[in-house]
Amino acid sequence: MPHARILIRPKAGILDPQGVAVEQALPQLGFQPAENVRIGRLVELDVADATELEAICDKLLANPLIEDYEIQVDA
Amino acid sequence: MPHARILIRPKAGILDPQGVAVEQALPQLGFQPAENVRIGRLVELDVADATELEAICDKLLANPLIEDYEIQVDA
Repeated sequence: MPHARILIRPKAGILDPQGVAVEQALPQLGFQPAENVRIGRLVELDVADATELEAICDKLLANPLIEDYEIQVDA
Repeated sequence: MPHARILIRPKAGILDPQGVAVEQALPQLGFQPAENVRIGRLVELDVADATELEAICDKLLANPLIEDYEIQVDA
């Protein structure tokens, strides 16, 4: 079965409260500041039919209204 | 600022209920079956000091007891 990795990110312009929380926490924990922190999801799976992955993302894994996704299939 | 991507996954052997739910949902939605579905997190950020990323993961972004992480820093 081909192995696939799907990176799901909040779309540009969509507020990412988890990312904001991380950005604010870093200096409080004594770390250097960070910018543009975005928290998304990582889905890894072995699929029988990799051509279905886009439909699987649209219907099940991602919310296309507020999230972008990137599909990487191992050769 | 260097751009970094952090992939956070449930450790092998740790139950991943979200992954199980996706695995069960796929045939019900008419898709081919998938195996070894694991749901993790994706953190992308621009950091002032990339050498801090491992400590940031250990202290803030990941739970080292149940999660593994992989740090990718863009050149």
